[in-house]
Amino acid sequence: MRDVYVGGAGMTRFGKFPDSSVRSLAEEATAAALADAGLAAGAVETAFFANAAAGILHGQEMIRGQVALRHTGLLGIPIVNVENACASASSAFHLAWMAVASGAAEVALAIGSEKLTHPDKQKSFDAIGTAVDLEQRAEMEARLGGSGDKRSFFMDIYAGMARDYMARSGATAADFARVVVKNQGHGALNPNAQYGGALTVDDVLASREVAHPLTLLMCSPIGDGAAALVLCSPEVAARSGATVKVAATVLMSGRDRRGDEEPAVTRATVRAYERAGLGPSDVDVVEVHDAAAPAELIVSEELGLCGPGEGPALLASGATALGGRVPVNPSGGLLAKGHPIGATGCAQLVELVDQLRGRCAARQVEGARVALAENGGGFLGDDPAAVVITILSR
Amino acid sequence: MRDVYVGGAGMTRFGKFPDSSVRSLAEEATAAALADAGLAAGAVETAFFANAAAGILHGQEMIRGQVALRHTGLLGIPIVNVENACASASSAFHLAWMAVASGAAEVALAIGSEKLTHPDKQKSFDAIGTAVDLEQRAEMEARLGGSGDKRSFFMDIYAGMARDYMARSGATAADFARVVVKNQGHGALNPNAQYGGALTVDDVLASREVAHPLTLLMCSPIGDGAAALVLCSPEVAARSGATVKVAATVLMSGRDRRGDEEPAVTRATVRAYERAGLGPSDVDVVEVHDAAAPAELIVSEELGLCGPGEGPALLASGATALGGRVPVNPSGGLLAKGHPIGATGCAQLVELVDQLRGRCAARQVEGARVALAENGGGFLGDDPAAVVITILSR
Repeated sequence: MRDVYVGGAGMTRFGKFPDSSVRSLAEEATAAALADAGLAAGAVETAFFANAAAGILHGQEMIRGQVALRHTGLLGIPIVNVENACASASSAFHLAWMAVASGAAEVALAIGSEKLTHPDKQKSFDAIGTAVDLEQRAEMEARLGGSGDKRSFFMDIYAGMARDYMARSGATAADFARVVVKNQGHGALNPNAQYGGALTVDDVLASREVAHPLTLLMCSPIGDGAAALVLCSPEVAARSGATVKVAATVLMSGRDRRGDEEPAVTRATVRAYERAGLGPSDVDVVEVHDAAAPAELIVSEELGLCGPGEGPALLASGATALGGRVPVNPSGGLLAKGHPIGATGCAQLVELVDQLRGRCAARQVEGARVALAENGGGFLGDDPAAVVITILSR
Repeated sequence: MRDVYVGGAGMTRFGKFPDSSVRSLAEEATAAALADAGLAAGAVETAFFANAAAGILHGQEMIRGQVALRHTGLLGIPIVNVENACASASSAFHLAWMAVASGAAEVALAIGSEKLTHPDKQKSFDAIGTAVDLEQRAEMEARLGGSGDKRSFFMDIYAGMARDYMARSGATAADFARVVVKNQGHGALNPNAQYGGALTVDDVLASREVAHPLTLLMCSPIGDGAAALVLCSPEVAARSGATVKVAATVLMSGRDRRGDEEPAVTRATVRAYERAGLGPSDVDVVEVHDAAAPAELIVSEELGLCGPGEGPALLASGATALGGRVPVNPSGGLLAKGHPIGATGCAQLVELVDQLRGRCAARQVEGARVALAENGGGFLGDDPAAVVITILSR
């Protein structure tokens, strides 16, 4: 397979936009990515469209991408609708990479668009709550001590993970609060972030408890947005001057059929490093799936940025903050940038592409040459149903 | 890109199965395809899972494939959920082809599974009715003269196509009835078909009118089912003795961005013939997307099996019946075999693989060496939102 480059990247601001739609957001992100690539829509030969919740939330169960892209000049080419819960957009990126790597296309578009807000906020929570095996949901709820449908079932899952992590690592709620303080600080430097600002650990701990030990500020918000990337062949990249390369993209469903005990993120990461010919010490900047604050600490360990149980110490050392050794979530992460679920995987990559191109202004990681994104989607039991690890380099 | 072979194919019977689920159907089809390929689940390196309606019908909006396949031994590998309305499964096949053609996988699974029946039949119709741009549905309904939600909106669309086709070609309702008589006759020879039997043109014309000029028997039924194919590299095929090759798979969204007037099926077919190095006269057996009877005549023309307006004469000549020059829908087609929408694209290919391997018993097309499938999904205006043309050869 040949090398694949990122020719362009673009996204909408994330936030609560009552007048937006999956389509209007997709149009904005597509136009931004194409403009950044210096390409017209006619240059795109295939498109992978990610969305996770528009069937339940807006009734558009089928052909979401064709509907969303119909006024962009992209119809006529292959369009495939891709879903992998909160990892939908990185899955679309994976397929766009495969289309170019295989030689099937010179230029491919990966886009994720999600209109997750709804006048009835419970509907948004309910949609996210379908990213588990519904036949097991009642059992999971009973085990987690959640209170049924009228809340965010997913934050009950993350709260259970947090309690397990605290028990095995000694991490505290204050450690989770420190993740939030860092990421909200980063988000304040990102004009596309839904939130962002100066918070203290006490602010975070004092916010309403959602599911013990998670407080509201430890949970990523409901929001709308879209993000898109243009992938291209070495020939197109050479003409356009694109310098960011896809060093590895590894997609896995969570459970290992061989009964392997290794976490899915670790398995996928080991394979990604291997394909890229790189290791944890080569990584300059990272975006992880901090749908809830403890996930950033857990994943930092699974990515090999530190040893088991060392996530809180790594954070406390400042290594994962802007200016540190390996900044994590310079965009603000899901906690501050926002988490329109079907768009998140591409938004992480838009941030990393811009970091590698030195375009991140106040939140720039100086001299970044290798970037890694971790995007997770859904749960089967305690495992993520989908994990995508992407490594980009220049 | 390297050649790709079909190592195995399997499907469930299609029908109304109150005790089945998307998962139970998927498990049965997966097991059948793997057994046919002589491979264990552990040999599969990536899977593409197609389903179109389980979000609206059963609430499983996300991670449908991971949930459906979780007991098959396939978890741990990449699983991507793919949707393109009634062309979902052939889109999954297209991606599985790409995974093997690119060298990313030696063995890939494409599977479609759909539990389309629901205790409230209107819910099944409503789910299918989301395969258009919902913002345009009211306008489409007004133009087509449909009566709102309480019926099959999709058959209103096909009825409109039928009326246009009659006006330009001189075709009559009796011609559409002859398609049904042929395909029900074929279906009677297919043990996996939902229906099939000996009907007369008068029987078909006398059945209840659904939307002028379509009668009930001219419409594909609501049903459940799953179909799966194992794709593999030339090396794996050589070891297992697989002889059926993917000569071409071309996916397109309907409208041509350049404003080209050519129908999407024609554009995709021309490209598929070109990639396969073949033409219409080389094709020995065909499966087309006869969601309603007139579609078979229209598509026969778009595939180049006959000239414009010659579909009815081609049918009347017997050329498209078993024993004729180029049998169309020997499986019984969507009309008789059934149309669990997210499974249909793979089911067409299961039939063609079996035809090329001489395994179709009473409905065998003798000496078939080249087979073509046309699968369509959704509508944007008058155009299919997705079209997949697949050519298989041995």
